[in-house]
Order: sequence, then C-alpha cells, then structure tokens
Amino acid sequence: MTIPRISNRGNNIQESPIRKLAPLANEARSRGIEIYHLNIGQPDLPTPVEFWDAVKSNMSHVLAYGPSNGLLILREAICNYYSRSGISLLPEQIMITTGGSEAVIFAMMAACDPGTEIICFEPFYTNYNGFATLAGVKLVPVTSSVESGFHLPPKDEIISRITDRTRAILICNPNNPTGTILTDNELNTLAEIVIENNLFLLADEVYRDFAFDGRKHSSILEIQDISDRAVVMDSISKRFSSCGARLGNLITRNSSLMSTFMKFGQARLCPPTLSQYGATEMYESLTDDYYTSIVAKYQSRRDLLMQELQNTDGIFFLKPEGAFYATIRLPVDDTDKFASWLLSDFSIDGWTTMVAPAAGFYATPGKGLDEIRIAYVLDEQKMRKALRILKLGLEEYQS
Amino acid sequence: MTIPRISNRGNNIQESPIRKLAPLANEARSRGIEIYHLNIGQPDLPTPVEFWDAVKSNMSHVLAYGPSNGLLILREAICNYYSRSGISLLPEQIMITTGGSEAVIFAMMAACDPGTEIICFEPFYTNYNGFATLAGVKLVPVTSSVESGFHLPPKDEIISRITDRTRAILICNPNNPTGTILTDNELNTLAEIVIENNLFLLADEVYRDFAFDGRKHSSILEIQDISDRAVVMDSISKRFSSCGARLGNLITRNSSLMSTFMKFGQARLCPPTLSQYGATEMYESLTDDYYTSIVAKYQSRRDLLMQELQNTDGIFFLKPEGAFYATIRLPVDDTDKFASWLLSDFSIDGWTTMVAPAAGFYATPGKGLDEIRIAYVLDEQKMRKALRILKLGLEEYQS
Repeated sequence: MTIPRISNRGNNIQESPIRKLAPLANEARSRGIEIYHLNIGQPDLPTPVEFWDAVKSNMSHVLAYGPSNGLLILREAICNYYSRSGISLLPEQIMITTGGSEAVIFAMMAACDPGTEIICFEPFYTNYNGFATLAGVKLVPVTSSVESGFHLPPKDEIISRITDRTRAILICNPNNPTGTILTDNELNTLAEIVIENNLFLLADEVYRDFAFDGRKHSSILEIQDISDRAVVMDSISKRFSSCGARLGNLITRNSSLMSTFMKFGQARLCPPTLSQYGATEMYESLTDDYYTSIVAKYQSRRDLLMQELQNTDGIFFLKPEGAFYATIRLPVDDTDKFASWLLSDFSIDGWTTMVAPAAGFYATPGKGLDEIRIAYVLDEQKMRKALRILKLGLEEYQS
Repeated sequence: MTIPRISNRGNNIQESPIRKLAPLANEARSRGIEIYHLNIGQPDLPTPVEFWDAVKSNMSHVLAYGPSNGLLILREAICNYYSRSGISLLPEQIMITTGGSEAVIFAMMAACDPGTEIICFEPFYTNYNGFATLAGVKLVPVTSSVESGFHLPPKDEIISRITDRTRAILICNPNNPTGTILTDNELNTLAEIVIENNLFLLADEVYRDFAFDGRKHSSILEIQDISDRAVVMDSISKRFSSCGARLGNLITRNSSLMSTFMKFGQARLCPPTLSQYGATEMYESLTDDYYTSIVAKYQSRRDLLMQELQNTDGIFFLKPEGAFYATIRLPVDDTDKFASWLLSDFSIDGWTTMVAPAAGFYATPGKGLDEIRIAYVLDEQKMRKALRILKLGLEEYQS
C-alpha cells in the first residue's frame, strides 16, 4: 500500500547533533557507567526561589490564556531590567515568546520568505539549522576560526556572501558555542553592513549577562541608526536557570515588525501563563548580587577549564569571554567518533564524559571535525573529574 | 532611509478575527461598560486541583529541559486515558507539544511543503489560517452549511477539490466553531478518500470528550486501514480548563512521521516542564465522574442556548452536538458590523455581549457574513443575561 510521503522539510530537518549521541549514553548507563554531561547547555544552578514563590501565589481558579504578546507586568519588568544597562524600552517593544526558540523562528519568518537567505557566523548554535528549515530559509555561513578566538572575519569577507536573496544577518552574542563576545567595533561593522545593504540584524543575546573579566556586553539595541533593523532574541532559560519554563522574548523598536510578531503570536494564542508570573518576580526581585554571583561562578569554571586543558598537548582554544561554552580543537580527525568512543569504550572508575562534536555547529561540510563544544555547567569538583576523564581518554584514543 | 521589508508571510498572515474586536471592547470598558464574553473559547470551569497539587510537589531544584517529545510519565498517562475509550496506543506514538497550536503546525509542516494544499471544511477554527501561512500551505475549503448542521457535503464534492498538490485533509471533530460531531459514516467516507488519493488525514480532536445527548465521539485512531495516514492533534486546554498551561499532543502510529515530529521538536527543545507534571496528574487521577460532570455542564448550557435563541425570529441553527460552540445565522448582512455595534453602541444596565463574527472562520470570501460563533463558556445565569442582551441588541439593530 502506498503511504503519503513526508514533506521535504520534514525529511531535511536535522536531528539535533547535541542530542544524537543520546542512544550511546543510554547504552553506557545500562552498562552501569555514569556520565558527566558537558554536552548540553542545561545549567546546574538552582532556579531562584522567587520563581517558585510567584508560581505558588498565582495558582488561580482558572489557568487561562494570557495575552498573545505576554503579560504586561512581565514586559514592564523586562523594561526595568534593561534600564539597569542604560537601555530604554517600552513594553510594546517586547513580545514574550515560548522560549528563545520561538523568538528565533518568529524573527526568521518575519524577515524572510522561503528561498531567501540569512548570513550567520559558523560555528553557530546548531538549532538555527532546524529553525531555518522550518522557515524555508537558507543559512549562508561565514566561517570564524579557533585561532582568532572566533571573532568576526573582515568586513569584505562578510559582504562577499551577500546576494539579492539576503534578508538578514544573524549573530549570537555572547556566543554559543564559542563563548566569544563581539567588540563594539565588530558590532559597528555589522551595523554598517546592514545599513549599506538594507538588511535586518537579528541578535540572539540569551547570554547577555554572562560576560567575564569585567567585560561589558553591548547589545545591538544600543547601536544608533539601526533601531528599525535590530531584533533581539532573548530567553530566561540560562539567566534564571529556568530552561523548562519555556519563556523567551523578542525585542524591536520597529513597530511594523512587532505587529507582524503579534500576528504570529495570535496564531499560537499565548506563551505559558504560570511561567510568566515566575519570570516577572525574578526580573523584579533579583538584584545585582544575583547576576554578579552567577557570572562569578561561570567565570571560575571557565578558569578551571583553561587551567585543565590549555596546557594539554594538541588541544587549542583561546580564553572564552562569556556565556558558558568553549569550542576547543582536539588532536583527532573526527570528534564525532571520539565522543562516541568516550561513551562506548572508555571510563574511569565507572564514569565517562559526554561532549558535543562541533561539526553540527557548522554549516560548511567538513568544518569543525576536529573540534568539540564544552558546556561548563557542572560544579568545579565534577568539572575537574569530567575534564580529567576527557584528557585521559584523549591520550588512550590517540595511542 | 530605506527599511528592509517584512516577509510576504508576515504581511499576509491574518490578524486573529476572534481577537480583532478587542480594541472596541477596551473602549467599551473605558466607558464603564461591562462585557459578557461569548467570543472566545476560554472555559470558565476551574482548573482541577490535581493540576495545582502536582505543580506544588514538583518544584524541583532546577527547572530543567525535559525530553523533546515530552515526559514519559505524561505519555503513559495519555495512553491510559485513551485505553478507557478502547483505543490502544504506545507512549512512542505520542509526542507532547506546546499547546494544540504547535501540534497543528508540526502536522502541517510534516505533511506539506510550501505550495502544497490541505483540504478543510469551512467554517473552520480560524487559526488554521495562521498556521497554514506559517507553513506556506494553501487551505482549500469545502463549504458546509448551517442548514445541514455543518455536516460534510457529499463525497463527490470533497473529491472535486483534490489536485496533485493536495497532501492532506484536515478536520476538527467535534467541531470548533460549529459544535458538529462527524458520524462514523462521514469518517469512513473521509478514510476512503485519503486511501484512494494517498493523503494524510489530520484530525483536531481537542473537544473529543465533549459529546452531548449520549453520543459517542469516534476518533480517526479507531478507523482500520489508515493507521499510517492518521494524525490526531489534541490539547489539554479545554478538557482540563488549562489553556494557560500550553500543552497539547500529536498522535500517530506512522513511525516515520513521528520521527519527523521528533526532529521538529528537538529544534525547539521541549514543551513546558511544570505543566507536564500537572497534566500527568490530571490524566491519571480524574475519573469518569469528572468527564461526565463537565459534559453535563456544557450540555445544559447548550440547552439554554437552544431555548433562548431557537425561537427568535430570523435566527437559525441546528442543535450543536458537542464541543462548546455554535455557529448561528442572524438576520443581518454583516455580523462584523453588528458585533462591533454591540460593543460601541449598545448596552443594557451597563452590560453588553461580545460575539465572534463568523466570516473569519471561512476561507471563501463573502461566506459566513451573516453568521456568528458563540462559545458557551459562561455559567447559566450569565449566559441567560448575555443572550438577552444579544436578542434585544438584534431587535434594536434591525430597527
């Protein structure tokens, strides 16, 4: 019997390269092996008690639909949060989304029609591939390299990839998977390019609070002259260790674009109501101390990562500047095989380490085969052990 | 200065016709007028205490990502729920989605590529238009009429709309906005059509528990020979009065299709974690008494609606068989104007009634201009008052 075929986009959309080693991890567990997860950006820090308190005190009679653009109190709280960085926003310039994921999809769909292109810098957050497939948009990669700490290539090189199908440039800053923070010069160059070529600038600033060594992260919302082109995509997942809340937001001062987001939002009714009360309370109540303390935690883990790996033969990376990731070059041909081997053939005292092969973070075939992404979302004691297993594994794998 | 233009899909996607009268409602409120909402399917019944109890007892240290296809305990609970209707499912045949909305989008995107078509029966749930725009799919309407209680037109008429671009037939059963429940004969006819023409059959069965007068709703999951073609889209929003939880699900026995849904799901990471604990507990703990009592409530409201409106001159509709909607023909030329007028120019003792003009539920231009959708989601006392205002308003509007 003939069965109707699945759509091309359904066939073509990638399996998550972050999650695709999961079956090997499950097999390892079934053999009694325990796993240190450096492969996924799931923070281990506690979700602030303010979230749970707000959920408790908003257990209403009826858990109803909220507004399609999110609760006003939450959008006001986000304005207050931004005002602390000197960024002035109105609640109607913010739309609450179901996770940062929906923010990226809506931004792509509003800026682009099927068959058009977005320029992005590889390695990039791998799920952009999936969102682009859903939106029918082609991601055109410009490669950044481990040698330059994954900072942007020269303006000429970026411009050379622009065609008449290009609609936007997409950045992630601070960067997942590299931990790189763009300088004001780099941001200004991007602003010049989008103005000169009449493009949107889409910035995933989910990790904006995570800047190390006293650096200040600059938002594209601070750049003059691009207020009608700039779209920020954000999420509470990492900031407040609330990945399961599924709340993000879209920010733009372009009111036509915001009306378009609103129509997309009306189609899917609203983001989760209960999570929004929790998020509002966290934005309103958590003080600078909270932000300072989480940045300090991730920074000291970053320092530990440098200390443990930087002097290892054949391993190369520059010091990550923010977020909680590093993309690291290893002395192996194919990190997919190495990461699989760590799960299936290697352990120390019943433990092994799981990392994400970096090829899935590149759009250019063959790039990143000798790199891995590490998410430092474990406490220092566990991280030390996880990295020790990684180093010893690497020695044994090479020999 | 040139500004990049918004995508065609962004420009073309409809504003929600259910929500578009909201500005007039806000103005009425600012004049001190209170509003009975018969315009939106937001149940007034309490969210079961089982939901809140489960949320309270799952306030974990870290609100983490869950699996992309949803928590196994929830998928198992849904299997148990279906087994009570004699429908046998495995947890891996169910994927938890962020609301029924995401279920419909994923189903459309997996079945269709941009430029292909889905046949649906108008009037239909208006947000299908938005989902179709996002997916780049054309909805091809087959019209059902108030005279035949919105049951399906003959097989020939349906088949005549099939082209080589058709990929699926989409039904909503029990129906929003009409309250019609398809007979087994109608379902079998649809099954024949999808087999004969090699199509998917997508069924939105969100209201499957709401069948009146002792009727039994039949799911497409019960039809032999279409297990590889049948996709059910469901939601807990109405069943458990939990619209703000944003949880739905996709069900199919076609494992390739489920793998495709899973890849879509991985891109957006996961549905809301906390809501899933609440939903699990409701599926597991609520007994037949719960379902019987909510159906009885909606049925008695349906009876009240019949009693109040059926003998009114110029109003026509047949008795709704399920869900909590009725699509009603009024003796006016343009219900959009009438519904607006009720908000801006009419009130009794400081109250007015808001209804949804039905034109937005049709894809064929000019259809449904003399119809409204009523959602009977108010208690009987309020409904009686709301309908009295509607009737008196109609009299005054006509004179």
